[in-house]
Amino acid sequence: MPLGERAGDKSESRYCGVETEFNDDMPHLLSFNIHGGFDFLVAPLIDPSYRPSLMEQDSSGSGALPFAGSDLVLSPSQWSSHVVGKISSWIDLDSEDETLRKDSEIALKQEIAWASHLSLQACLLPTPKGSSCANYAKCVNQILQNLNSMQLWLRIPLEKSDDETRNPDHMGEGHTDTWELWNSFRLICEHHSQLSVALDVQSTLPSPTSLGRWFGEPVRTAIIDTNSFLTNAQHYPCLSRSHQRLTTAFFSHSIQVVISGKPVHNPPMASLESSASSADNHTEGGWRHPLKSYLDYLAYLYQKMDPLPEQERFELGYRDYLQSPLQPLMDNLEAQTYETFEKDTAKYIQYQRAVSKALLDRVPDDKASTVITVLMVVGAGRGPLVRASLQAAEETGRRLKVYAVEKNPNAVVTLHSLVKLEGWEKLVTIVSNDMRQWDAPEEADILVSELLGSFGDNELSPECLDGAQRFLKEDGISIPSSYTSFIQPVTASKLYNDIKSHKDLVHFETSYVVKLHRIARLAPTQTVFTFIHPEHSAKNSNQRYKKIRFDIPPDTGSAMVHGFAGYFDATLYKDVHLGIEPSTATPNMFSWFPIFFPLRTPVCVTPNTPLEVHFWRCCGSTKVWYEWCVTSPSASPMHNSNGRSHWVGL
Amino acid sequence: MPLGERAGDKSESRYCGVETEFNDDMPHLLSFNIHGGFDFLVAPLIDPSYRPSLMEQDSSGSGALPFAGSDLVLSPSQWSSHVVGKISSWIDLDSEDETLRKDSEIALKQEIAWASHLSLQACLLPTPKGSSCANYAKCVNQILQNLNSMQLWLRIPLEKSDDETRNPDHMGEGHTDTWELWNSFRLICEHHSQLSVALDVQSTLPSPTSLGRWFGEPVRTAIIDTNSFLTNAQHYPCLSRSHQRLTTAFFSHSIQVVISGKPVHNPPMASLESSASSADNHTEGGWRHPLKSYLDYLAYLYQKMDPLPEQERFELGYRDYLQSPLQPLMDNLEAQTYETFEKDTAKYIQYQRAVSKALLDRVPDDKASTVITVLMVVGAGRGPLVRASLQAAEETGRRLKVYAVEKNPNAVVTLHSLVKLEGWEKLVTIVSNDMRQWDAPEEADILVSELLGSFGDNELSPECLDGAQRFLKEDGISIPSSYTSFIQPVTASKLYNDIKSHKDLVHFETSYVVKLHRIARLAPTQTVFTFIHPEHSAKNSNQRYKKIRFDIPPDTGSAMVHGFAGYFDATLYKDVHLGIEPSTATPNMFSWFPIFFPLRTPVCVTPNTPLEVHFWRCCGSTKVWYEWCVTSPSASPMHNSNGRSHWVGL
Repeated sequence: MPLGERAGDKSESRYCGVETEFNDDMPHLLSFNIHGGFDFLVAPLIDPSYRPSLMEQDSSGSGALPFAGSDLVLSPSQWSSHVVGKISSWIDLDSEDETLRKDSEIALKQEIAWASHLSLQACLLPTPKGSSCANYAKCVNQILQNLNSMQLWLRIPLEKSDDETRNPDHMGEGHTDTWELWNSFRLICEHHSQLSVALDVQSTLPSPTSLGRWFGEPVRTAIIDTNSFLTNAQHYPCLSRSHQRLTTAFFSHSIQVVISGKPVHNPPMASLESSASSADNHTEGGWRHPLKSYLDYLAYLYQKMDPLPEQERFELGYRDYLQSPLQPLMDNLEAQTYETFEKDTAKYIQYQRAVSKALLDRVPDDKASTVITVLMVVGAGRGPLVRASLQAAEETGRRLKVYAVEKNPNAVVTLHSLVKLEGWEKLVTIVSNDMRQWDAPEEADILVSELLGSFGDNELSPECLDGAQRFLKEDGISIPSSYTSFIQPVTASKLYNDIKSHKDLVHFETSYVVKLHRIARLAPTQTVFTFIHPEHSAKNSNQRYKKIRFDIPPDTGSAMVHGFAGYFDATLYKDVHLGIEPSTATPNMFSWFPIFFPLRTPVCVTPNTPLEVHFWRCCGSTKVWYEWCVTSPSASPMHNSNGRSHWVGL
Repeated sequence: MPLGERAGDKSESRYCGVETEFNDDMPHLLSFNIHGGFDFLVAPLIDPSYRPSLMEQDSSGSGALPFAGSDLVLSPSQWSSHVVGKISSWIDLDSEDETLRKDSEIALKQEIAWASHLSLQACLLPTPKGSSCANYAKCVNQILQNLNSMQLWLRIPLEKSDDETRNPDHMGEGHTDTWELWNSFRLICEHHSQLSVALDVQSTLPSPTSLGRWFGEPVRTAIIDTNSFLTNAQHYPCLSRSHQRLTTAFFSHSIQVVISGKPVHNPPMASLESSASSADNHTEGGWRHPLKSYLDYLAYLYQKMDPLPEQERFELGYRDYLQSPLQPLMDNLEAQTYETFEKDTAKYIQYQRAVSKALLDRVPDDKASTVITVLMVVGAGRGPLVRASLQAAEETGRRLKVYAVEKNPNAVVTLHSLVKLEGWEKLVTIVSNDMRQWDAPEEADILVSELLGSFGDNELSPECLDGAQRFLKEDGISIPSSYTSFIQPVTASKLYNDIKSHKDLVHFETSYVVKLHRIARLAPTQTVFTFIHPEHSAKNSNQRYKKIRFDIPPDTGSAMVHGFAGYFDATLYKDVHLGIEPSTATPNMFSWFPIFFPLRTPVCVTPNTPLEVHFWRCCGSTKVWYEWCVTSPSASPMHNSNGRSHWVGL
């Protein structure tokens, strides 16, 4: 039974599991826990005392392995919907003991083969025993090469107690960052998309920065031990503040929670009647699953989360979905695209505020009725900026003459009907031309445009406005007056895998528009390129080069950089800005998702070694493109040399 | 005029160049230096005072750039055979000064375009000025994407004096390992095959280990400054012992030497008559090139090198040429292959010694005439081991009955004629069968085989001998009695580039047989897998797993590992061994070149961080294969999982 319902949220984190011990009466084990309120089990598939090397000695037997029930006692669909296979935890493929190592390899392959036979959705792989995991990873990697759709969840504790890594023969002695264990394992398995993480949560937690790394990793499940729960005044289990925050973060990142361990709290029986799901408990005459109070607490946490804001709900389907940026100069937008973007009220309110301020600055009150300001909307589309500008004129009592310049002949048709519909014939002149070619009949006081992409200049606003600047008065105003791009390094294994699945270079050298969700932001953003309009300096060029150094906060530990998230912030006019840079983003605006620049080979950053990245904006006669590379901790290849993979046409 | 002639050696290092200053009378400059005894010039292509930004200001001029002579004053073939273009040394693409940076980019592209127009074979790129080189590398990388066949030689000093890297803004302050500068540059340019190194040799040299790294890198040229020369008792220039060793190593690695700088020695005029190439000097009435004494000294060094041994000369054409290992079980060898390998006298002498010792141990002198030892050659080919065994019997006075088992029916034909020709009919029984299937009529005292590959077990000797062991007596002897494989990490940029040129995964997961030459061996070899024959233990398996840790000598500095060189050593019988492991290799044996296991992504190793590598030998029902990965300094992907790219068929 799901933990709760949140409007619009169909995430898997509604389902809660329970880790069980080996039980060869699988039908009973399943019904016990499902009736107890859990959605699925994480259960051992085979008798834990089984060892392949012992079996061979009495080979006179039937040869059947001691599995926990077959596909006859439970139907494949029951197995597949309710059981995650727990691979024998004694397995140790990196042991110095060769017999144990060989037994481990045989048992691992047998259990996975059995789980595949049962069509399980996932298996939980035990935590690597030492700090070395190469042989374990090698076997899992072999298995992954031929696996059906089953997921393998590698169990990784959030923190490893030192005594487990005390083997002096292992390198990196005293090293207890379990993320590094995961990282080695997945690097050997080449970020295989069916290999993910099951996080073991204990009573102590690493720093929030260190925890944050995991949200860019493919974590499917968090296993919370009953020992991690505190006891509240009524003797019920509850979680510490930091555990609550972490659990809520799991829920909002589609990470399923599994409860593990024996009950260690004794809530009073009286509470039965008042419990959230008391109706359920009555069905079997007051019987309660021994872990029910833990489950109830998680359901309580789930249900008290803030509901998803409407915009977030709208954007759910776009989360971590890679889109190619628009080519607005080469391609004409479709009516539907215009319509969607015109609904971004927050954006046009900012434009209206900017035009109002510019009009007030330019025309003193005593000249309001006589001076007519010439305002040109360059890239007018279907007219939203024309409307915002006219509203600004009305609001400030200034007179306006508007030119609406638009290169898309289809949008021009709509513009004409809009002008007619609104009775703007005397105020608005429609120009069907490219602003870079148009021979304007007079000079403008104000040039208004909305040519910005997610990375500011990436839809060639600089080139377009350079072309339009010819017909702006010497002292004229451009709205926006400037814009700046920002980047930050991120862990984004999902995006990396999506790009890798194309198996080519082109996709690794493309920048994508994407609603970032399952990522870890590893350092605060830094500025990249700035453009100012109008630009009067003689030797102006739109080529740019920036070297940026990021220092990863030392309490993060090591982390994987799969690429860079990019944003922009634009100054429309004076203090009126517009942008998506996370710390200053304009609220309730949905026109732009961030941009993502991938790295062909993810870069592992370690504490105290800076991450140094270089970005270039390059301009040719017919196209503009970015190139990028990393030079510290080690040099990456240059990405997108000469714009070979991705560019924006002029 | 070449420095000298060595029998069989056609390497480019015979040619010596000279670095010159800018001179706009190119025909004179060329004739002066060629007549002076040099083979080519490294000469600036353009007036060093030229700056693009200054040109634009007086754009009234003709617009022609101040190049040093056009393709009219020198023919393209003269340009191309005798001139290496020296790119302006003021260029600094990573300067903080934007004007200088932009000037540098324009000038670099103009000069390279001009050099391409002249069909030069190479251009010398100036040393990156600071410790950061990303923008420089980005421009060079753009150029490389569209370059004709011209080579770009990046000038890298062997050691950089600290005052050149004093910029406190640069990371890695105090870092003076110029190899790292090269490494960043080439990583950004993705090991581009047209980008190579010109080493600047000064008066002080790094440690031999540190120098050794360069021999695995694409070094084309070594530029030796006249200041690096010492003065001998007769006032002639000469080099220190370590400089001599280095220069000789350059010569034997096809690295051309260029002399640079002003003459700083004053040899007595009287010596003119006695100089090595005095005939030449007379042609122009005693005129001598001012650097002639340096050139003479290099010619002297070149000529006093030991001549190439015959075997080396024979193997010249195989140097650094990747070959696929044989599939001796699946494919039948050709007669020519048998013929080549049969010529390896050194190998068969060892076999004969081993058989002799085994016969003496097995049959005491007093039974020499009565006991007949049954010796089976498994994999007899065209009979060389049959011959060696019979010679051992003769040498020791023991009686032998030989079975020659061979699966290749074509070789069996040759065996029959050999037996007839030599009159061995009473001694030798020919068996046309696979040793794994043959039903032997009696058991053998001695089993002799030569199934070893470059990596010992890689041609499946273990599987074959396991199959043959059935018909070896309980106390019988196998020759070889054991073999062990060895590996060591190497820098091998040439091999890496050859593999990369295939643009697929398969070639990066294949092991190659290759005569290693332009490589740097970064650590002593370590053992990998050992096999012993006969193998009587019950649970015997030919699967193997080995974790190996290499510590790179700390005075090496950082280095690039492109893969692992593999070797074997076999114990034929007691103290008679056979092998190619460099420190114990059997002299004058040519049957095996080393094996090379590549890494998909080269790994940079730094001092004090161990290199940890794992090798697996995996066995399936129809094939045997290796998997390998690196786990320190960071984890690599698993190579050749499930033998997906490369395997040996059973």
